[in-house]
Amino acid sequence: MKSIVIHAARDLRIEDQPVPAPGPGEVLVDMAVGGICGSDLHYFNHGGFGDVRLREPMVLGHEVSGHIAALGPGVTGLAVGQLVAVSPSRPCGDCRFCNEAMFNQCLNMRFYGSAMPFPHIQGAFRQQLVALAAQCAPADGLSPGAAAMAEPLAVALHATNRLGPLLGKSVLVTGCGPIGILSILAARRAGADLVVATDLGPFPLHMARRAGADVTLDMAADPDGLRPYRGEKGMFDALYECSGAAVALSAAVPALRPGATIVQLGLGGDMTLPLQAMTAKELRWAGSFRFHEEFFTGVSLMQKGLIDVEPFITQSFALDDAVAAFETAGDRSQAIKAQIRLGDAG
Amino acid sequence: MKSIVIHAARDLRIEDQPVPAPGPGEVLVDMAVGGICGSDLHYFNHGGFGDVRLREPMVLGHEVSGHIAALGPGVTGLAVGQLVAVSPSRPCGDCRFCNEAMFNQCLNMRFYGSAMPFPHIQGAFRQQLVALAAQCAPADGLSPGAAAMAEPLAVALHATNRLGPLLGKSVLVTGCGPIGILSILAARRAGADLVVATDLGPFPLHMARRAGADVTLDMAADPDGLRPYRGEKGMFDALYECSGAAVALSAAVPALRPGATIVQLGLGGDMTLPLQAMTAKELRWAGSFRFHEEFFTGVSLMQKGLIDVEPFITQSFALDDAVAAFETAGDRSQAIKAQIRLGDAG
Amino acid sequence: MKSIVIHAARDLRIEDQPVPAPGPGEVLVDMAVGGICGSDLHYFNHGGFGDVRLREPMVLGHEVSGHIAALGPGVTGLAVGQLVAVSPSRPCGDCRFCNEAMFNQCLNMRFYGSAMPFPHIQGAFRQQLVALAAQCAPADGLSPGAAAMAEPLAVALHATNRLGPLLGKSVLVTGCGPIGILSILAARRAGADLVVATDLGPFPLHMARRAGADVTLDMAADPDGLRPYRGEKGMFDALYECSGAAVALSAAVPALRPGATIVQLGLGGDMTLPLQAMTAKELRWAGSFRFHEEFFTGVSLMQKGLIDVEPFITQSFALDDAVAAFETAGDRSQAIKAQIRLGDAG
Amino acid sequence: MKSIVIHAARDLRIEDQPVPAPGPGEVLVDMAVGGICGSDLHYFNHGGFGDVRLREPMVLGHEVSGHIAALGPGVTGLAVGQLVAVSPSRPCGDCRFCNEAMFNQCLNMRFYGSAMPFPHIQGAFRQQLVALAAQCAPADGLSPGAAAMAEPLAVALHATNRLGPLLGKSVLVTGCGPIGILSILAARRAGADLVVATDLGPFPLHMARRAGADVTLDMAADPDGLRPYRGEKGMFDALYECSGAAVALSAAVPALRPGATIVQLGLGGDMTLPLQAMTAKELRWAGSFRFHEEFFTGVSLMQKGLIDVEPFITQSFALDDAVAAFETAGDRSQAIKAQIRLGDAG
Repeated sequence: MKSIVIHAARDLRIEDQPVPAPGPGEVLVDMAVGGICGSDLHYFNHGGFGDVRLREPMVLGHEVSGHIAALGPGVTGLAVGQLVAVSPSRPCGDCRFCNEAMFNQCLNMRFYGSAMPFPHIQGAFRQQLVALAAQCAPADGLSPGAAAMAEPLAVALHATNRLGPLLGKSVLVTGCGPIGILSILAARRAGADLVVATDLGPFPLHMARRAGADVTLDMAADPDGLRPYRGEKGMFDALYECSGAAVALSAAVPALRPGATIVQLGLGGDMTLPLQAMTAKELRWAGSFRFHEEFFTGVSLMQKGLIDVEPFITQSFALDDAVAAFETAGDRSQAIKAQIRLGDAG
Repeated sequence: MKSIVIHAARDLRIEDQPVPAPGPGEVLVDMAVGGICGSDLHYFNHGGFGDVRLREPMVLGHEVSGHIAALGPGVTGLAVGQLVAVSPSRPCGDCRFCNEAMFNQCLNMRFYGSAMPFPHIQGAFRQQLVALAAQCAPADGLSPGAAAMAEPLAVALHATNRLGPLLGKSVLVTGCGPIGILSILAARRAGADLVVATDLGPFPLHMARRAGADVTLDMAADPDGLRPYRGEKGMFDALYECSGAAVALSAAVPALRPGATIVQLGLGGDMTLPLQAMTAKELRWAGSFRFHEEFFTGVSLMQKGLIDVEPFITQSFALDDAVAAFETAGDRSQAIKAQIRLGDAG
Repeated sequence: MKSIVIHAARDLRIEDQPVPAPGPGEVLVDMAVGGICGSDLHYFNHGGFGDVRLREPMVLGHEVSGHIAALGPGVTGLAVGQLVAVSPSRPCGDCRFCNEAMFNQCLNMRFYGSAMPFPHIQGAFRQQLVALAAQCAPADGLSPGAAAMAEPLAVALHATNRLGPLLGKSVLVTGCGPIGILSILAARRAGADLVVATDLGPFPLHMARRAGADVTLDMAADPDGLRPYRGEKGMFDALYECSGAAVALSAAVPALRPGATIVQLGLGGDMTLPLQAMTAKELRWAGSFRFHEEFFTGVSLMQKGLIDVEPFITQSFALDDAVAAFETAGDRSQAIKAQIRLGDAG
Repeated sequence: MKSIVIHAARDLRIEDQPVPAPGPGEVLVDMAVGGICGSDLHYFNHGGFGDVRLREPMVLGHEVSGHIAALGPGVTGLAVGQLVAVSPSRPCGDCRFCNEAMFNQCLNMRFYGSAMPFPHIQGAFRQQLVALAAQCAPADGLSPGAAAMAEPLAVALHATNRLGPLLGKSVLVTGCGPIGILSILAARRAGADLVVATDLGPFPLHMARRAGADVTLDMAADPDGLRPYRGEKGMFDALYECSGAAVALSAAVPALRPGATIVQLGLGGDMTLPLQAMTAKELRWAGSFRFHEEFFTGVSLMQKGLIDVEPFITQSFALDDAVAAFETAGDRSQAIKAQIRLGDAG
């Protein structure tokens, strides 16, 4: 079984590993598709981010789908051959936060492809994976690529839940990478009336329009592009901050109406914010981190055709071309989501 | 100028009235379309409902659209010839509740076509109407019939706002008259994942499916039709109660999950409810009455194509056929929304 | 070891049972005090309530405190001799609702002294009890009687949490039995500005004033006593409905302001409610059932002197006088909470 | 009539002005007490703050009480001689935000003693004041000093409302100036179980303990004083940030539990925050600016003895000693709230 292993910055290898066997409550999955996430790119390009650093080789990947190859003892509700989206989230179920159903804050989380604890949590870019049946969302009717979008979609849905009702609201999205694009889809699905999106450069904004943004603004071309939305203390009810750039959030503040809510998805370390203006306008800000039940919700919404992620899978590579996939994934002039066909190896 | 005047139960007359002139801040509207609401039908069939009784002749109608015919002094933002949806809601702006922005609870509300105070508040089924500019939502791009749906749509949107976020939720709708149908559209627009609708008889359920309901249940054919949704304390997160029938709400309770929310739209006087079961399950119930800013929101959502009400305008009559329109509007085997072309008179 | 066993309506016996031994994670408790709850009284007087009927002998009691007598293997954080309030709530930790942290909706709940499943869940009116360490809230500094009030206090705190913020609000409490009295304390603690309480007869209203009610109304003496609070659509922001009587809730509705919230604590089977008025005023109603983390919160608030329950322990009986205790507990002319000294037996 | 006029930084003068006469809906107030706020101190010490600069002489003061001296035409509900707390907040009642009942965001706000628009809004440190009857909260039973605390108390109550329910919660307060102290009182009144307060130096922390803080931490003596509250991702449910110092907020973040809420009261311009940690923990942050209905709520809570501000009026000066009052007010080793007896002039 091949897997995609990062050893150090820019040292990505395809390696053989033994095929595992499913235990009770587990399934063996023939992996189909893996999407490359921003954190995968950080490991690839920099060997980590912030305090999180690679200290041993680690299989990458946490946006994955596959077909059930075998059922472990006691597994029901899944069938061999069935397409599933596999959630990378494995909370312990037993800590203080799991007991409060705040599973994304689990003290012992084992999220695929994370260098946070040591030994690292090995990821899911591999040809076969043993997963808990409970991690698997049946994805019948979806393409394997769409199923592998369940994870970033869950991130956008979780953020939307943190924003509260959006029906008829005006929404700003700063940053149109994959999370920004999926946030546009989620905001639209939740009933937003006006969706404006900002980024730097034409390609992400072109995709934002495909995702349903009414207006897109290229802040590289016109840093003051939000000017028309500022009159009388601003007009947006909500902001999805998907850039992780303090400048994006700061530029957005004058365009937000008093009492508006910001949900923070982008991660950029310490940020200097216009706190006096944010306080005087009584803005609200909420961090959003990963997801929980939204993984299954997202698969269901895709199955019903209520959210369509297909146009945003911009590239698909064979497993053996993983390095090219990673090179492409970070190119914001052509990629929203680059995926790897994990089952397609020489 | 002709208008549609109710004198007593079953005594509906088309009468001539003088054409009014717009004052400062007002507009004259050439009325285009008026939709018949359940309260109009109560006046027509019974001369009122509950304690609300006709005591003098009253122009009916509060779901209306038209084209601006003239602007009073000081009016900006509207143009002669422009299609507008006219909100029937005229709060005083000055009472205790208006000062808290709870305009639908205004102590001095003058809502078109209401026999509640005396003298009655005259309605809007007429060839010309003088309205405040602030009541007029520009409806460019909509059909006059769709514009006249803004009022009942606002009722459904207001109820949806009272339910809180619906993204990915399971929703039950009891009663598929016009408000139930518009609630299905609103729930879908707000991101509901599963929508189940109940009524008695095939026509409303056929329309419920057109509105996007995943499953419809004819409770006349199978009073126990909600059985599959009851397992392990129920599964719906939310209920739009649009029937006003205690039996509908009572039958729904076992199918609601603990902590679910009921929004009450149907009005049926006193109702005997299974309060012990509702308490043990910690359900929430919220009354929903009329609307406020949702009137403008709804017009915008229709203009963007995010909500399509056209299929549910089931009949359209000329003004002179008003009596036939009223006869048809109450026939649940063929009508969701019957409208009158107020500008179409002999 | 003696315990208090109900065999049938009016057939309460004190019986000997073997002393249990604590297993891993468990403690042996020398029981100190048990308070008599309305459900205990229903078993005593009627052999059950609604569909819940005694089918075998059952130890009663779920409002209890005691001193740790022995620690089972692996127990930390508790000491022999320490006073503890023992929570009667034992959710399974593993069902659909436990996994959502809705523990009071557990599908497999084993709540002390409940005839709901069969075999029944034996209660805690006994001289010794084996409990999970996790059920025990250290109650150092409290009297054993106050510690035994933790359970009904938790009920009132849970209801308060369901009402939302009360700081500066106007609150009505209908029904001043133990839950009503504790609701007054909780509302005051949560910052209510005006507290008005209603009941029938002088004793509970006298106690309501001791609990901090600003105004008490004897609805037997003046059924229209809420008249002064009705002007201009009512003035209370919140209602604790602790009577379970439809007439109490119906009389309260005109005194509630639009948008007010009702929390239902009283259980009275089906109730006929003025749903049209409740809808037009856009009231909210929320069921409240038992509690979860509020058990520990309440003990802490009592320990800090932020809530004082002592004045409402109106009677204390030796274990051997259990029948007299039950006779007294239901007498609303002299009892709020009657307790039994479980450790005080001949 | 004397008034306290700031001409420039450190140039405070007592000047004569003509006594005004009340018009319709207005009252003439013989001023009793004025409290010195942080913004008054900024004008006094620096001639303004941030972009807000003095451009003409301005009467200072917005925390005031007095006795009704005369009623203008049409005023009811107030009596000559009655003590009133006078709200400094005068929204226009007519703008976009007033129409949404967000009065503290009024586009045309005329808040006493503000140099924000030009001409400046003259303040209330004067011997007589004409105010709208609607600004006056009857304060019978309070001392004039306590009545003058209604304004900063309203600020703390408004912030508490933005935090949501605090019953049984753990609360951290950073910064124990007047707003921090009043936040401690408000948190306690709203039912907080644990209150921990931080500042630099012994006096404010001594007063924090008098206000009800369970634990106080001198961060100057031990910058790592919050260490015990950090274990397993932190423990505070809520933070009142009253210091306006980024270092205070940053130090608090590790002590806040996931999902905790920060309310920002302190104003310190741009602030550099640990946004990555705040996002990963899914914290919420809410700005809080001034108040609205909380002004009247606070007076009522003080009248009932539910909040006691008296211990925190640390100094009282005659009007003629205004300069000494301002010098003292900023000395955090002895002053929480310094007040001026506006009616006490030579």
